[in-house]
Amino acid sequence: MGRLTGGDPSLLRRINSAVVLHALRGADFATLTEITRITGLSRPTVEGVVEGLIDAGLVVDSPAEEGTARRQGRPARRFRFRAEAGYLLGLEIGPHRVAAALSDLDGRVQGTGQREVDETASADERLDRLRGVVADLLRRAGISRDALRAVGVGTPGIVEADGTVRLGTALPDWTGLALGERLRRSFKCPVLVENDANAAAVAEHWKGAATESDDVVFVLAGLSPGAGALIGGRLHRGYGGAAGEIGALHLLGREVTPESLLSTTDEPLHPLDEQAVTEVFAHAREGDERAQAAVERYIQRLVHDVAALSLALDPELVVIGGWAAGLDGVLEPLRRELARYCLRPPRVALSRLGEAAITIGALRLALDHVEEELFAVEGSVTGRR
Amino acid sequence: MGRLTGGDPSLLRRINSAVVLHALRGADFATLTEITRITGLSRPTVEGVVEGLIDAGLVVDSPAEEGTARRQGRPARRFRFRAEAGYLLGLEIGPHRVAAALSDLDGRVQGTGQREVDETASADERLDRLRGVVADLLRRAGISRDALRAVGVGTPGIVEADGTVRLGTALPDWTGLALGERLRRSFKCPVLVENDANAAAVAEHWKGAATESDDVVFVLAGLSPGAGALIGGRLHRGYGGAAGEIGALHLLGREVTPESLLSTTDEPLHPLDEQAVTEVFAHAREGDERAQAAVERYIQRLVHDVAALSLALDPELVVIGGWAAGLDGVLEPLRRELARYCLRPPRVALSRLGEAAITIGALRLALDHVEEELFAVEGSVTGRR
Repeated sequence: MGRLTGGDPSLLRRINSAVVLHALRGADFATLTEITRITGLSRPTVEGVVEGLIDAGLVVDSPAEEGTARRQGRPARRFRFRAEAGYLLGLEIGPHRVAAALSDLDGRVQGTGQREVDETASADERLDRLRGVVADLLRRAGISRDALRAVGVGTPGIVEADGTVRLGTALPDWTGLALGERLRRSFKCPVLVENDANAAAVAEHWKGAATESDDVVFVLAGLSPGAGALIGGRLHRGYGGAAGEIGALHLLGREVTPESLLSTTDEPLHPLDEQAVTEVFAHAREGDERAQAAVERYIQRLVHDVAALSLALDPELVVIGGWAAGLDGVLEPLRRELARYCLRPPRVALSRLGEAAITIGALRLALDHVEEELFAVEGSVTGRR
Repeated sequence: MGRLTGGDPSLLRRINSAVVLHALRGADFATLTEITRITGLSRPTVEGVVEGLIDAGLVVDSPAEEGTARRQGRPARRFRFRAEAGYLLGLEIGPHRVAAALSDLDGRVQGTGQREVDETASADERLDRLRGVVADLLRRAGISRDALRAVGVGTPGIVEADGTVRLGTALPDWTGLALGERLRRSFKCPVLVENDANAAAVAEHWKGAATESDDVVFVLAGLSPGAGALIGGRLHRGYGGAAGEIGALHLLGREVTPESLLSTTDEPLHPLDEQAVTEVFAHAREGDERAQAAVERYIQRLVHDVAALSLALDPELVVIGGWAAGLDGVLEPLRRELARYCLRPPRVALSRLGEAAITIGALRLALDHVEEELFAVEGSVTGRR
């Protein structure tokens, strides 16, 4: 039950500011009269709040509209939200690449960048490479580092609320790395670190294959598979941040790894050797029967993983990303088997964002953080612990 | 973001009533002065609200306290919440039994009852048997049917928000049964139907093995196994109410059923024949090697189911109920295997409520419903769709 504190003028001011910002953000340019009408606030309140927002740099007066007829005296002033009052970064730190996306406060992407990294690279090398991508991106976009309001990061592993990687076997040196703290040295703004599959789930919900659904499981298929789930539109991280860490599902009752499933010889593939995987997939497409059998085994196991997730969570929609999104004919067997195992089978779709999912999701998490500060009075938008 | 509607006197009255009821429920007997202090409301407001609650039968004046010294004139009136102003029922409709528990508005159990039902009984027979249990329970407790404020029901299957069983293979005639509607004919109050494992999860959280945790998976182990999950203290039903319907997990990648795992011959056990299961368990305890091997297979598979749920949801705690709660030595292999498969293994505990879990959970759901009406101003306590 909500408590009414009554008589807290600073809270009231914040509520009113948030209400006005919200209204302005929904409109292109609005007059004081329009804001008064939309918000239900009094004219003097709106005037005071708008002046405060202009002082804070979040709202700007419209330029004089030359073409408009001046009916009586000076035209009504028009105001708009300054999406350029700040910028956000979404970063991906993966086994084979680092990447970044830059947006304004409306989430409009201003530029992206990426570089390959060797899977054996140390944490220092990987972070150096990332810093290079970010510096280059900011320079190309002509945005000062000081204009950044928040930075989101997606990376494999179990991530603590403070951005420490509790467990991350996919990258060297990753377990125990104080990733949030390390990155905060490069940025003056808040840095939010999230599991990569979780970030990708947020991205597909924001502008990918899951915009129509609030109950989504995103499967990041790869040699080190993971999943992220939104429940009621909120990220489900689990009690210890390990929800969706389904790497071991492959093992349950079978003790087989993706590396052995996908091998066309008696030896399993080398862990994280995605080049070898790409070759198996290519050979399968060319008609190589052993490669086709390997891909078939892999898809079968993916189907089981997705079925287990669906039985546990009952999502409306499952989005398949990572490698599997590039496999021919992965959807049909998935749908068939889900219909067989699940009492209420979810819809299945391929990722629409592909490689960009993790940076876009990280961007959205940064934007959520800023919006919480700008627009929310209490509680969290994304359910961050 | 919350909206401030301001100037809605009926809303304000409801908020104040809820605040006062809440305060009274936490105290044994409170004076107007105490209520004023606890709630922060003005004395005239408290007086008005308390009079309204007395009229509604929810609050009662204390009997004159004979022993108390009268300092000056008449003693201060004392008020208490009338937990006896209404009653609640929690019902279980299972394959082998129907059961009921009765409580007052404070959730204190006033009585219970149960009867066996054959697993082949029709829906009509099963509901007749249940009505008999309820009538007998009310009569023994001396409570009129009209005093019931809400009825909760736990039953196997996927249950729609209106109480229709969308899919329920464990009971004859159950799929498609408008169970909520059927039961509403017997009661004048709201009837809330819930999946049995979900109800049991709620019960263990309320007064069982999970009172200390808000992130819990409850596993109802049996020939038709199910699971219920609380996330942040709220029941996670899934998009279509099918979350935790893990019956098919046994099949994934193996195509084996509990009936075949637990068989000591070449033939699987008869579906739902729990008597045969009990015998296998008893023989295992007596040292029969084939029975021990069957139980071992069953536990191994249970471990996999629980591991899959844990990987998907990352709960703090897993509570094992149903049959498995009665098995010797189920916890140790569970803990060992969870530590092996899960990056962050949950704690594991046995059900503390045993057979009573479903009725107690159904009771809690009924109580939630009434508390929402009495105490909450907006939003839902339990996250009901």
